[in-house]
Amino acid sequence: MTVVTLPADWLDELKWDEQGLIPAIAQDDQTGDVLMVAWMNRDALARTVETGQAVYWSRSRKKLWHKGESSGHLQRVSDIRTDCDADVILLKVQQTGGIACHTGRYSCFYRQLQKKSDSKQTDSHKWRETDPIIKDPGEIYPGDQ
Amino acid sequence: MTVVTLPADWLDELKWDEQGLIPAIAQDDQTGDVLMVAWMNRDALARTVETGQAVYWSRSRKKLWHKGESSGHLQRVSDIRTDCDADVILLKVQQTGGIACHTGRYSCFYRQLQKKSDSKQTDSHKWRETDPIIKDPGEIYPGDQ
Repeated sequence: MTVVTLPADWLDELKWDEQGLIPAIAQDDQTGDVLMVAWMNRDALARTVETGQAVYWSRSRKKLWHKGESSGHLQRVSDIRTDCDADVILLKVQQTGGIACHTGRYSCFYRQLQKKSDSKQTDSHKWRETDPIIKDPGEIYPGDQ
Repeated sequence: MTVVTLPADWLDELKWDEQGLIPAIAQDDQTGDVLMVAWMNRDALARTVETGQAVYWSRSRKKLWHKGESSGHLQRVSDIRTDCDADVILLKVQQTGGIACHTGRYSCFYRQLQKKSDSKQTDSHKWRETDPIIKDPGEIYPGDQ
């Protein structure tokens, strides 16, 4: 991906944190479901705008992360918003393959806080997985095996 | 609000940042629209669970923030989720008054990145406000005037 990124006022209007990053929420533009949250630096957001596909900054790998570059699960971006504080980005996306999560699930938010039925204690809740694995991660990322 | 908060395994499973905080997305449980992003500490999330209403941590005021305590725009919480990394919370809420934003708008994400029609330069975008002010902030927060 070769993209020339010039200075842009709209990028300057955002509040980047001390690492030069801003959190970005990806939301399915059809269902409205929240799919994932990742981080962007200026370059990632500029490339997202220029290519029409979500590009994030991988904090663990410390490099640009063109979502779907390994898995094929690209995100086509139909809408980019920011909030009143200009410190969060909201992307509406069309999720290729219907899988946003590296675990092979549709959404990363597959764990729901549920009440344990047999307890009246304050610690009466637990996280439960509610969403199925659509595709085995070993099939999605064969190079990682 | 008097709530006794005991240690809880489900709170320990979350990844709190170095300030002991986690970002929380509030999503309208009827429309699916993302309303706002705020921060929670352990106490805020425990109180959210115990009261069924969104309680955040105000980083500017450095205290618990029972959303709607001034404005009346409470959020009744119907679903609490976390993501694969356990470092973001997603709340589904019923937004009292239909106003989540302190600017008097339905959602905090009222600015959309739009292309300037008259430019082919790289800096050919700008943020435009797309959502109306439903209620004047001066009416919402009369004590601040």
